Amino acid sequence: MEEELRASFHFNKDEMQVLDEREFFCPGFIDTHVHASQYCNCGLALDLPLLDWLRKYTIPTEAKYKDLEFAKDVYSACLDRSLRNGTTTAQYFCTIHRESSNVLVDLAIDKGQRVFVGKVATDQNSADYYIEETKTSIEETEKFVQDILSKQVNPLVNPVVTPRFAPSCSMELLTNLGRIAKTYDVSIQTHCSETLPECQWVKELFPGFEDYIDVYDKAGLLTAKTTLAHGIYLSEREMSRITETQTKVSHCPNSNCSLMSGLCDVRKLESLGVVVGLGTDVSGGYSISMLDAMRCSITVSNIIASAKDGGYVPFNYQDALRLATISGAEVLGISDKVGNFEVGKDFDALRVNLSPKAGNIDIFGYETMEELVQKFIFLGDDRNIREVYVAGRRVIKKF
Amino acid sequence: MEEELRASFHFNKDEMQVLDEREFFCPGFIDTHVHASQYCNCGLALDLPLLDWLRKYTIPTEAKYKDLEFAKDVYSACLDRSLRNGTTTAQYFCTIHRESSNVLVDLAIDKGQRVFVGKVATDQNSADYYIEETKTSIEETEKFVQDILSKQVNPLVNPVVTPRFAPSCSMELLTNLGRIAKTYDVSIQTHCSETLPECQWVKELFPGFEDYIDVYDKAGLLTAKTTLAHGIYLSEREMSRITETQTKVSHCPNSNCSLMSGLCDVRKLESLGVVVGLGTDVSGGYSISMLDAMRCSITVSNIIASAKDGGYVPFNYQDALRLATISGAEVLGISDKVGNFEVGKDFDALRVNLSPKAGNIDIFGYETMEELVQKFIFLGDDRNIREVYVAGRRVIKKF
Ligand SMILES: [Zn+2]
Ligand SMILES: [Zn+2]
Repeated sequence: MEEELRASFHFNKDEMQVLDEREFFCPGFIDTHVHASQYCNCGLALDLPLLDWLRKYTIPTEAKYKDLEFAKDVYSACLDRSLRNGTTTAQYFCTIHRESSNVLVDLAIDKGQRVFVGKVATDQNSADYYIEETKTSIEETEKFVQDILSKQVNPLVNPVVTPRFAPSCSMELLTNLGRIAKTYDVSIQTHCSETLPECQWVKELFPGFEDYIDVYDKAGLLTAKTTLAHGIYLSEREMSRITETQTKVSHCPNSNCSLMSGLCDVRKLESLGVVVGLGTDVSGGYSISMLDAMRCSITVSNIIASAKDGGYVPFNYQDALRLATISGAEVLGISDKVGNFEVGKDFDALRVNLSPKAGNIDIFGYETMEELVQKFIFLGDDRNIREVYVAGRRVIKKF
Repeated sequence: MEEELRASFHFNKDEMQVLDEREFFCPGFIDTHVHASQYCNCGLALDLPLLDWLRKYTIPTEAKYKDLEFAKDVYSACLDRSLRNGTTTAQYFCTIHRESSNVLVDLAIDKGQRVFVGKVATDQNSADYYIEETKTSIEETEKFVQDILSKQVNPLVNPVVTPRFAPSCSMELLTNLGRIAKTYDVSIQTHCSETLPECQWVKELFPGFEDYIDVYDKAGLLTAKTTLAHGIYLSEREMSRITETQTKVSHCPNSNCSLMSGLCDVRKLESLGVVVGLGTDVSGGYSISMLDAMRCSITVSNIIASAKDGGYVPFNYQDALRLATISGAEVLGISDKVGNFEVGKDFDALRVNLSPKAGNIDIFGYETMEELVQKFIFLGDDRNIREVYVAGRRVIKKF
């Protein structure tokens, strides 16, 4: 069999590897929403809802990233851990600091992850030590976009225009960010409708607008290249504007549960034609593993199902895997390149190994291949990901 | 420091180990509800609610345990995996087969886990190939209790009278099981109020009784040594009978989410004085790790909090750790022996190691000891449990 394959494809024997019986390739995972700058807080500071959590823990942490050495330490650990856990593509929030955001990009180029990276923009309602002048925020964002575009000799790095969320940005800033994204034809990411107090706050801060989505809409921030994280409390009108503008949503179930934000009905969004991917939302979510995000998406969907009186089909492991791969690729507008193993796409792949010695899973020998995949999704961890490939380059090899 | 300690306690140098900077001891975890016989299905068969799931997947699997070789394979893997994940005490459901249930007990004695083990009793509403005559079920249960009591030269093994749940037992069987438990003064475990269709079914099957709890009550099955798994839909009356009889509850959040059973309000039970512990409920819950059970208990509690309009304090990591240790000990009536490190108790302990090379956690060096514990609970896995001790015996040593 091995010989036959080798002969018919003219492979060189030295270049050929044969998968073990309990191994398979899985498309690389795509994390559509993760704060690299909060990675050091993973598993900590999980006792407050969003707005208090931002003030007490997250803003003070993000302020540290003016120190490039600190940035390098955390970003490096974050990228390594994310790759080891099988994330071949990630869309990151950094901080307001352009220089240290560039540190993440350079590290990603070095380590080989496919990344979408945003320097955060904030000109109001933040701490006095972590805020930008409107003009500076606009200029620094534009400069950051230019920085990354100049690095696109490596096609794996992409700039993302990144207002934190409406409450922390003036309309002037938002509008200019929309303009920058349009001028350079680049992606946009922000947060939207994550908690009820946040939605209420937006109403108070932007009284002339129909709703939360209308603020982004008027600023030119709803595009086919826009990712909105969360979207739990969207109204019917907001959902239809999202559909019309082909805006994408990143569902972050661990974060939504950990910060007590609420449950996002992804089935509903998808039924309206909204493309939804998964995000770890570290460190609102405590785990950087997309396997955890998949499991949490099933948990949240099951809980929605148990609260309804029938008629709702909860996500199964296939749905979760789809969300973590091809749907994520669609969110980021790269489904022509990655997300599955269609001929012609880049090879973004995980070599999954389920031998019992490798991880925390027992296999009894009679499992079907489909059951192995299922055990990987429910019980797998980084140990079961033996190799990671991004665009054909092997970036992780464990044993 | 090391020398001083050694001198003042008269330790022999060869017998003394010094913990690394990123190590600490944690009380062993107590899994108050786990089906050893379903361990082979972990991570599989998670697409149906309870009653269909029992019929389609679980009963056929449990029927296989008349084969002692099969039992030995699965039980052995289950015990190993449970211990490696830090469970020093577990309360197991086996199957209706007395002999293979004894296999689990013998393996547990060999491997050193502290166990409470039940042969399942079922005389109605099961498959024709997996059911007992009432008389046989009574006799075999009594014999199993005697078997285990005769093995109690090892004080770590304990028999548990184990009706599966009311729907699968006649009143005659239930009453006799209550009698056996009383005669031998041993523990009882069963399921109760896990899903609404199950509660409805009990109502139909036992028309002369006030409610689900009343069935167990009249059979003499509500005692201070009884563990009821789940208890999601208990009425006020049922909860107060549970309190009066000092019956205990095992909360199994992963299972409740995975089988779409619903959300158990543990705060409410505890506020009424009910002692609640945690269970993995493998394989309705897909993970045998009590770290997973702890995280799931926080998730469920957070979701309950987010659905309420204030006034509900969700579980934090300290609460989860308490549930997994001392509360579990109280559920099983062994809090005089284990559950924390009070002087005079047995040494059931985990040597936890958080060096980044060990597991999937990054530490940045400035974390407090409390933050290390928190990272362990939210991000830890079996790799971070370097050694496991049960009653002073080291039963797991990894590196
Ligand atoms: Zn976020
Ligand atoms: Zn159970």
